[in-house]
Order: sequence, then C-alpha cells, then structure tokens
Amino acid sequence: VSFGQNQYMAVIEQGHATLTLTSALRDTNWVTVRWSNGHDSPFHYVWLRDNCGCAECRHVIAGERMSDPASIPLDLIATDVVTVDDSLLVTWPDAHRSSFSAQWLAAHAYDSVSRARSRRPLQLWNAADVAEAPPTAQFDEVMSDDTALLEWLLRLQTYGFTIVRGMGSSPGNVPMLAKRIAFLRDSNFGQVWEVRSEPKPDSLAYTSVKLTAHTDLVSREAQPGVQFLHCMVNEAQGGESILVDGFAVAEALRQQNLEAWQTLIRVPAAFRYQNDDTDVCASFPVIRLDHRNEYFEVRYSNALLAPLDCDRDDVLPFYAAYQAFSLLLREPRFEYSFRLEAGDCEVFDNRRVMHGRQAFDPNTGRRHLQGCYVDTDDFLSRIRVLQRQSDFRLR
Amino acid sequence: VSFGQNQYMAVIEQGHATLTLTSALRDTNWVTVRWSNGHDSPFHYVWLRDNCGCAECRHVIAGERMSDPASIPLDLIATDVVTVDDSLLVTWPDAHRSSFSAQWLAAHAYDSVSRARSRRPLQLWNAADVAEAPPTAQFDEVMSDDTALLEWLLRLQTYGFTIVRGMGSSPGNVPMLAKRIAFLRDSNFGQVWEVRSEPKPDSLAYTSVKLTAHTDLVSREAQPGVQFLHCMVNEAQGGESILVDGFAVAEALRQQNLEAWQTLIRVPAAFRYQNDDTDVCASFPVIRLDHRNEYFEVRYSNALLAPLDCDRDDVLPFYAAYQAFSLLLREPRFEYSFRLEAGDCEVFDNRRVMHGRQAFDPNTGRRHLQGCYVDTDDFLSRIRVLQRQSDFRLR
Repeated sequence: VSFGQNQYMAVIEQGHATLTLTSALRDTNWVTVRWSNGHDSPFHYVWLRDNCGCAECRHVIAGERMSDPASIPLDLIATDVVTVDDSLLVTWPDAHRSSFSAQWLAAHAYDSVSRARSRRPLQLWNAADVAEAPPTAQFDEVMSDDTALLEWLLRLQTYGFTIVRGMGSSPGNVPMLAKRIAFLRDSNFGQVWEVRSEPKPDSLAYTSVKLTAHTDLVSREAQPGVQFLHCMVNEAQGGESILVDGFAVAEALRQQNLEAWQTLIRVPAAFRYQNDDTDVCASFPVIRLDHRNEYFEVRYSNALLAPLDCDRDDVLPFYAAYQAFSLLLREPRFEYSFRLEAGDCEVFDNRRVMHGRQAFDPNTGRRHLQGCYVDTDDFLSRIRVLQRQSDFRLR
Repeated sequence: VSFGQNQYMAVIEQGHATLTLTSALRDTNWVTVRWSNGHDSPFHYVWLRDNCGCAECRHVIAGERMSDPASIPLDLIATDVVTVDDSLLVTWPDAHRSSFSAQWLAAHAYDSVSRARSRRPLQLWNAADVAEAPPTAQFDEVMSDDTALLEWLLRLQTYGFTIVRGMGSSPGNVPMLAKRIAFLRDSNFGQVWEVRSEPKPDSLAYTSVKLTAHTDLVSREAQPGVQFLHCMVNEAQGGESILVDGFAVAEALRQQNLEAWQTLIRVPAAFRYQNDDTDVCASFPVIRLDHRNEYFEVRYSNALLAPLDCDRDDVLPFYAAYQAFSLLLREPRFEYSFRLEAGDCEVFDNRRVMHGRQAFDPNTGRRHLQGCYVDTDDFLSRIRVLQRQSDFRLR
C-alpha cells in the first residue's frame, strides 16, 4: 500500500471543492500545478515528498508521520509527475510514489493568491451594525442538531459574538452548552465561575462596579478563546452589558493613528493578576497579528495592567498609544450596549470582542451570571470536524 | 487611606531585597533613583502615576486598578519627590500622593541593567552534564513540605527537568503530584492519560514505535508547560527514555549555523493533529524568543509537522533549517538516555526539554506510563506564591 492517501487527507476543505487540476509541469525546485480557473500554484518537491500520505510515510491508524523530514534531499526532483482522476501522482528517484487529490492541494497551496483566498471570514462591526439584529442562536436547537451547531459556530467566528436565547436559569446549562464545542478551559477561577457581587472579591468582576470593556485572563499567556456568560437572574438596576469589536477598534486606530497602532503591535504591555494563591503575569502587545499578518488577538484590561517590562524609550510611546486605543474603544459608535435577560447567554471571542458592564446596585435586586471558557484551538477544531462530517454526508 | 501601598505591592521579589534607595532626582520626564550600589534607574512620571498602589487607585480587597490609565497627562511632572524610610514618596500636581518601596522599585526597574539582572535562571545542559547526577526530588518530601516543593520547582526551572523518585505504582499519584503546583491542563487526550501500546492508537505515543525527541501538543497554540510522565510498570525490552535540552540545541545551532537559527525563529512551521473528533492546527516558529529576546519555547515534532503555511520563498530555507536542527538534536552529546523504573516520574518543561523513547517490544513485558500537564503560567505562579510565603516567614 505504498501508493495512496491517509484517511484524513481526503477531507474536502471548505471553499476549495470546486477547483480541478488542468496540468502539472516539472520545474527545477517545484511542480507547477495549473487549476481549472487558470491560476498556477507551485509545490516544492521537498514539500510534496514530506507530505506524502502513503501507508509507509504515515501510520495507517494514528495518521501521524512515520517518515523523517530530515532525510529528504533538499535538491530532490521528481522523476515523473502526472494528473490522473483529478489527482497529482508523483514518482520519486527511489521509485517511491505519492498521490495528492486536487482538493487537498487546493486547500494547502501556499502561493500568495491561494493564501489570500483562505483568510478567516471576519466581519468587523460597529454598534449600529448589530444593535437591531444581533447574531443569535436557540439553546435547544444548538444542543440537539449538528447543523444548527455548525451554523452557530460559524456566526460566532464571523462576528466574534452571539447571544444564545432560551437557556433558562438552570446552573448546569452553560457548561453543557460549552461542552457542545469541547472540554472547558480551566483557570484559577475554576472551570465554571459565578459573577455576582461578593463581600470579599478577588476580582473586580465580583463587585458591583462598572467594568470598562476588557478581555479576560490578560495575565495568562493564552487568553481563553470563547467566553460564555449565562444570565440566570438580572433584577438589579444597572448592569447593562457592553460588547466592543476589538478588531474594529484596532483597524480604526490603524487608519487614524498609524504610529499608535505600530506601537501597540510591537511594544509588550504587561498584565498581572494576584490573589492569595495565584500570581500570574504576561507581557505581550495589546494588538497581535498572526503569521499571516492578520489580526490574532486583542489583550486589554485596565484593571490588570502592570508595571511595563519594556525598553525605557518605549514607555512614553506605549502610554500614548494605549491611551489612544483606550479612548477610541469607549466611543459610543463601538459600544454595543444591551441588557442581558434571564435565559440569555452572551458567547464571544474573548480575544477579539471586549466585554464590560455598567455599575449596578446590588440592593435593588439579584444579578447572577455563570461563566466558563473554551479555547480557540478547540473552537476551530469543532468547526473543522463538523465540516468534515457535513462533507461526508454530502457525498 | 490615599497614601499607602496595596497588600501585594509589599512582596519582596527575589534577588532585589538588598538594594536600598540613596536619592531621587526629578528630571523632565522621569525621576532618577540612585541605588546603594551606585546604579541609577529612571522611572517615568506617567509610569509611576499609573502604578500608584493607594486605596483610591486600586481596589483594597481585589487589588485591581480602579484608576484610569487613559486619564494621566503624558506630560505629567511630580511636584515633589522624596525618599523616606527606604520608600519613594511622590506628590502630584492635584495633591494626590504615591508611595513605592525600594524593593518594589528595584524589582520593576526597566533600565537595561536592571532588566538584564532579572533574567530567568536557566542552566543549559548536554547529556554529559546530567547523566551521572540528574536533578531529582523525593515524592513524599515534595508532597508534604513547601520548602521542598519550592526547591524542586526552582530546580525544574533551572534545568528544565527533574526525576521524582518514590512515586510507587499507584495510578492517582501523578495528578496528585501535579496538583501540588496547580490544576491540570486539559486536552483532547484528557486531563490524565495512559501511555501504553494500544490496538487502535490515535497517537504514535500509544504504539510501541520509537519516538524521536519532540515536544507535546505542538498543534495547539499554547503547548503545555510542565509535563509529568509517571512510570508505573516497565518490564518490556527497550523503551529507554530520552531527554534533550532544546534551548541548548537551539543555542548550538545559533553558534554553528546562524542563518538556520534566524530562519527557525522567523518562518512559521505548521503542525496538525487529527483524530475522529479533533482537528487542531498551529503555525508558529520552531524556536521562539520572548519579549526580551530570551528563549521562550521550542516547538518540534516530526510526527505532526503539517503542510507549511508560509511564503513560497521560505519553503526551501525552512526545510534546510529544520533539517539542520533535526540532525543536531539527535547528536549523542545532547541525548540524555536512561531507563525509567517503576516509581520514577520524569517531570520536564515541555516547551524547552524535548522527550522521546526507544522502540520497545510489547511481547516481552508490560510498559505503562501515566501522564498529565500543568501550564507554565501556573508553574511560575506557584513559584512566586511560595517565594512570597517564604519571604513573609523570614520577616
């Protein structure tokens, strides 16, 4: 079985299913594949050899690589390439053969045009864009139907938040909803935590003061990805919820104050959280880009900003940029303000959409939210697995 | 109580306890503090005002900032600075006053000399340095004594690994040991996982094949920090354990092949793990530096290397650099090879020290390890909290 494809390599990746192979030409360092839309993608020989999915190169059950990437000659050239049945078949000098489907190649092409096409589908928003019809989902539908689950997750990915309705007031419902995606992300606050005014709070969240828009767990290297806040009771005066699209604010900053934006993606801010049993700190820029220079995350919390650990020449530029970002994100055009009712759950990308609340008066009635987190890795994993299952159903 | 210090600001940070304040001079943008060793540290006015620890600026119980960093004028100048009782007292134009202890200022000074002094205490090693007397700890001592716990964690931080002896063969002991540090880091493999040869493995770890040295969960954005592998039974032939100091290998690469090192800190590698219910991927450089340009982590696994998502011009340089690193880390001088006996637990910084094993023959006897993870944030947090408690005991 030295000529075939690993089981997981057969998955059709979204958005690439329609391209077919027209031709494959050998060049010095790569094969040039021409697609049905006329576009060319190069695939280096060493890259193709390294990604061979045959049973010799990858463990048939575990799916992991058994071959050694270090053993591939960097000047490797295929002895033959041919397209058959919409697959690229490659023969190597040692007679080893590799097969790649058009879909798999299209999904993994790394020329700049192909990479630009596979950007994440983010829809940045101002308050006015979402206030009348915020993205929502129904608890019972998401719990019982995988298609509804996938649609909800894609909406959450696009907008960075959704409101899930019909959750009731049962304390177990929010971890149940979160586990539709994956296991919970734990922290020093526990897997599931209660947001209400407490006599001895170890976080401002557990008081009744106003919380300016922020991201959670900024003092940890990996901020949790998806945050769930389930409103079980909300009878107090005040306490309106605030959501702000941090990527929209970052992009507005870039357009009106490029110097501040460049400072915030470069100079590390510092954040620290301490209680009697915990002392965590992290130094990362307030705005981070990923390896494709797309927005990766926003990390922002006045409450936990700590003494900077940066070059002394960066201190004043940092504060100038931090203040510019702070003032921008408080502008009413960015603040989506609304009242969570009992049974509503706000679910948001904690690394993109900042959340806050107005002060409330705990003497006027009870206010009790229950929250938990799921990491971004597992959120994206659930989307991929649901899409894979959906693709298989469609065949 | 507008003149004071937050409870957590009183903590003496390690290594800074001996410096005292000699003088404080106002400059245009900062106060220059002179220390008892003759060294000067600047502290910007805006930085000092932002870090005021008084009861008005920080919540007295939660310890979090109540003041607004965006409200500080960037051209702020103190009206008076004075040193009293080894503290810096600052009076601001609005009559607000701030107090900072010498220890706190020394711990947070951000001039280049002070930052260099507070580097992490890492001791890079080759196999010969540790083979005769690897860093160890005793299970019962670590479990029962906080001083032994702190000493073990500091040793683990310095060398990136330790062997904990006397763990017996009870399956609950490894999570019990890990929870001396903090809650467990969960993943798709569960909080506690069993390493043994299985008929339907969803990872090469669960076969009997050789595992070249690697880091775990490379396909996740945050690789787990501290890994525990408790050997409960080891009666099979083969299966010797391998540990390699990834920072030592990275440093050796930098010295003998700077171009490869520069490629590995810049070009993102890609890793992906898939089973029937999981599909996680991550693109990050193999060697990462932190905001101080110190080694942050190594991310390396042949088994999970995935199709690169980088510029096409970086493909060949990446493979050349990856191969150079791969060949270097396999050199015997770096491979600390030893046999885990029942009752031993190897505990290592998964983001620094790569681990592997020789192939074993499951027909010759049982081999069963139990493992779990704790994140780096919580590992460092436990060290800080234990040091804080130790400081309080010493007063």
